[in-house]
Amino acid sequence: MRARVYVTLKPSVFDPQGTTVADALHTLGYASVKDVRQGKFFELDIDAASVGDVRRIAQEVADKLLSNPVIESYRIDVESGVQGQAGEGSR
Amino acid sequence: MRARVYVTLKPSVFDPQGTTVADALHTLGYASVKDVRQGKFFELDIDAASVGDVRRIAQEVADKLLSNPVIESYRIDVESGVQGQAGEGSR
Repeated sequence: MRARVYVTLKPSVFDPQGTTVADALHTLGYASVKDVRQGKFFELDIDAASVGDVRRIAQEVADKLLSNPVIESYRIDVESGVQGQAGEGSR
Repeated sequence: MRARVYVTLKPSVFDPQGTTVADALHTLGYASVKDVRQGKFFELDIDAASVGDVRRIAQEVADKLLSNPVIESYRIDVESGVQGQAGEGSR
């Protein structure tokens, strides 16, 4: 099954990359883009029996390796492969 | 309104960052994580009248600045703020 971990800087943390992108967009004429924040994400192919197991492993991995809990927060979506369960797993 | 642009390397492009993360996870004992691919995402605050406009601007911006179309593909989700329309806008 596939889990996606989205890691973002916490709102209180300054995001120079996002600011640079926003400035570049203003220079290109996109004044309607008020703010940009950049994050990263990881697609993990996890070999586990249930959506719950996949979510648990993804959570452990996100805590231990993928995010820095001091300045970043993360969100996990699990895609179960079975179409009907995908929405359920991803909320 | 908020648009999220998710940029990933195309499947045929080698992802050394993802491979490094996968190797690190195996070293940490997570053998069930078979593969990792890393991408980036951008949260854009866009000041526009409709979900359609926001999507159009996000798409232009993604094409011109946020992704490299030679090696990357992207996906856009629009979050309209009104709960009922969020799902609709994001597909």
